[in-house]
Amino acid sequence: MSCSAPIGVFDSGIGGLTVAREIMRQIPNETIIYFGDTARVPYGSKSKKTIITYSRQIVKFLQTKNVKAIVIACNTASAFALETVSQEVSIPVIGVVKPGAKVAAETTRNGKIGIIGTEGTINSGIYNTYLSKTNPNVKVYGKACPLFVPLVEEGWLTDPITVEVAKRYMNELTDYDIDTLVLGCTHYPLIRHTIGSILGDKVTLVNPAFETARTLKEVLELKGLESINPAGDHKFYVSDGAEKFKKFANTILPCEVVETKDVNIESFADSIG
Amino acid sequence: MSCSAPIGVFDSGIGGLTVAREIMRQIPNETIIYFGDTARVPYGSKSKKTIITYSRQIVKFLQTKNVKAIVIACNTASAFALETVSQEVSIPVIGVVKPGAKVAAETTRNGKIGIIGTEGTINSGIYNTYLSKTNPNVKVYGKACPLFVPLVEEGWLTDPITVEVAKRYMNELTDYDIDTLVLGCTHYPLIRHTIGSILGDKVTLVNPAFETARTLKEVLELKGLESINPAGDHKFYVSDGAEKFKKFANTILPCEVVETKDVNIESFADSIG
Repeated sequence: MSCSAPIGVFDSGIGGLTVAREIMRQIPNETIIYFGDTARVPYGSKSKKTIITYSRQIVKFLQTKNVKAIVIACNTASAFALETVSQEVSIPVIGVVKPGAKVAAETTRNGKIGIIGTEGTINSGIYNTYLSKTNPNVKVYGKACPLFVPLVEEGWLTDPITVEVAKRYMNELTDYDIDTLVLGCTHYPLIRHTIGSILGDKVTLVNPAFETARTLKEVLELKGLESINPAGDHKFYVSDGAEKFKKFANTILPCEVVETKDVNIESFADSIG
Repeated sequence: MSCSAPIGVFDSGIGGLTVAREIMRQIPNETIIYFGDTARVPYGSKSKKTIITYSRQIVKFLQTKNVKAIVIACNTASAFALETVSQEVSIPVIGVVKPGAKVAAETTRNGKIGIIGTEGTINSGIYNTYLSKTNPNVKVYGKACPLFVPLVEEGWLTDPITVEVAKRYMNELTDYDIDTLVLGCTHYPLIRHTIGSILGDKVTLVNPAFETARTLKEVLELKGLESINPAGDHKFYVSDGAEKFKKFANTILPCEVVETKDVNIESFADSIG
């Protein structure tokens, strides 16, 4: 596998762009091939079997682009498909849940950790599973925040309405005296300042997107796969609505997204070659 | 077909319960078999081909319950699948778009009609198509309101946050001097008082759920299919999350939902027998 090969990053839609952004910031030499499954979003309410099927198709597609590593930039797909998919390919596959959980367990001082995410992620209990593996003594308090994704997608990142909604959601968690909060949905880093200003200095926010990029950097170094040349053009693919995706991507990425292509993702067979 | 046979009602999830509720109110003798496709919700972002496939599977399922008529209580499925599906079965199939559009065209005095709905419904332009068929002189102003569905699903129906979001969305429409507004998403009747109090008496709200139940009543009478006996137990089926569905249904229906069953909807072949 060549060091100059790109990194494959995929998500159920646009949220994973916050992970792509962190990779661009922390390891700027790496070229990204991004796939957003915008036709089949959201993943949160779908079964494990379906998510594995979808993830296999996407991995198959990314392999046609000769990626040297894959980042599953989606909490649900990380929870349901990482284990299966990573055993089926020979390149490293990294999810967002494990790096975030690891740092949260290391960060907490009073052992009380809050997790916010979509209903799917919170109900799956995936963060609890990883956190209790790392430190069996921590107490984990999950809170689904279903309004955050549409608020972010409206672009109301610091809007008084978003502040009010965030206050409502955070109230429940502050009652538990948490000192660490995991932003367990890839959209949430875009409103982390709003969330942080409500919780104050007492609570440390953990951004899995940041931790995932750091883990990727370590894995590439360990395997001698770091790119030594400047990154090429990042490329963006979606299963629906390429123009809408491009517009949103350009509001959050540090590079200009010139082109986004539609892919018929279902044509990529559900098997790993 | 027996008059005592039930009415099949389906939606992508829980929104269609507002249509079921209107049927229970207006034609209380009818028994309802409801199917909510909660595993594959939302329909708004999916392709026409996919929605037709899903709708065919659901119609096939409803036919196993010997329904005498079917109501597509979902704007997207009404837009994409009604025409195809109604040609494939011998019983009446009624959608929510046409009855709502018809009444809006009859209601407006200044010819300026607003439509609110999900992004899928607004972008499909389906209301514009029906409205201009009924009255080519009307002007139609669409506004996607993506926060309304999650606000309703949080149960924040009259919450100050919902009022503030509604004000923001309505501002754009009042600029166009509309005198009629179609609630083009089955969740919206649950916040019609909030919307109505912002727009004031000058704007008439059209509730397609109400108009659809009225159309169903007329069709049953025309075909001599009205039930002459009291309704039996209404039955509720979903493709995922039966317990959560039951809880929500009990907050909005005039009857008690005792049992909700999970159905493997994909096992119903994509063909109409």
